[in-house]
Amino acid sequence: MPDIKQARILIMATDGFEQSELMVPQEKLSDAGATVEVAAPKSRMKSDKIYGWDENDWGKTVSVDKDIEDVNPADYDALVLPGGQINPDKLRVEPKAIEIIRAFYSSGKTVAAICHAPWLLIEAGIIKGRTCTSYHSIKTDVVNAGGLWRDETVVTDHGLITSRNPGDLDAFVNKIIEEVREGSHSGRRQAAE
Amino acid sequence: MPDIKQARILIMATDGFEQSELMVPQEKLSDAGATVEVAAPKSRMKSDKIYGWDENDWGKTVSVDKDIEDVNPADYDALVLPGGQINPDKLRVEPKAIEIIRAFYSSGKTVAAICHAPWLLIEAGIIKGRTCTSYHSIKTDVVNAGGLWRDETVVTDHGLITSRNPGDLDAFVNKIIEEVREGSHSGRRQAAE
Repeated sequence: MPDIKQARILIMATDGFEQSELMVPQEKLSDAGATVEVAAPKSRMKSDKIYGWDENDWGKTVSVDKDIEDVNPADYDALVLPGGQINPDKLRVEPKAIEIIRAFYSSGKTVAAICHAPWLLIEAGIIKGRTCTSYHSIKTDVVNAGGLWRDETVVTDHGLITSRNPGDLDAFVNKIIEEVREGSHSGRRQAAE
Repeated sequence: MPDIKQARILIMATDGFEQSELMVPQEKLSDAGATVEVAAPKSRMKSDKIYGWDENDWGKTVSVDKDIEDVNPADYDALVLPGGQINPDKLRVEPKAIEIIRAFYSSGKTVAAICHAPWLLIEAGIIKGRTCTSYHSIKTDVVNAGGLWRDETVVTDHGLITSRNPGDLDAFVNKIIEEVREGSHSGRRQAAE
């Protein structure tokens, strides 16, 4: 059982991320002892940070540690994808972002997406046949992509973790810690396919 | 051939509509002589107007003529759905909005959606088997819903008009005028199903 204190976790997002859905996992995973980094595409509005979204307007900013072009998925144990309406819609057209998601998933690492971030799982083509949830507005998109959608705080299927909205953040972060401790999911993923 | 000057056209949107995608059709269809009304759900931020989105921030507001709860599709000849990332995502969870789209479509009236508004066509379940386009970021959602996606300025299939982005607005509005002049598409819709 890997130690969460040894874990390296990547949060990938761009401008318009739901503020709490990046900052709460960032804080809680760091508090648990993990090394947490934030990666964003060059298309972000400022070179050194990305802008959060809070209720009905732009909110706080978060420092960017790395361009997604420089991310090597082999350096990390888990990938966390915050939601928001704007952030995943911008990120899904970045080929490198989709390539990163596929690399984490296919190597059996924990991939966690909340709120509107399952649009990224759809774009990566990894949600078909997977039990999952999402923000309620994109349920139809998830179901059309072949996802088996459930209305639950957190759903886990072979290391693919999904939650619905900021109200689910406690369960979402706890499940990320639990899944990282369990280690690779590749064997079970292959068995299910 | 119905006269565009006799036509009544409904634009349905909520906060976060791509500013140009509501205001340009509103102006050009009015200039052509049509009566144009704007409907929005009660859940909007202000009671008498909705907020547009311009580039990277909130933009101009537009007055709301009618709550969607009070819309009778029989009173109109065509429905126009502006895009933006926020607006269609909010509108697709309003059952009355989806009911209105289905009513226009099933009665053979022109339905025109641009940019991210095809998410609303997905939600209404009317895009399956239809030749169409959309903003490039949601192509996968449209294809997963059964839409036959093309990268063209404007695509028309049995009175269902779609365009990709604000750069397509001239072709989009011209096609709306042309389709309204052609009248009901219900016969051809049935023939194609």
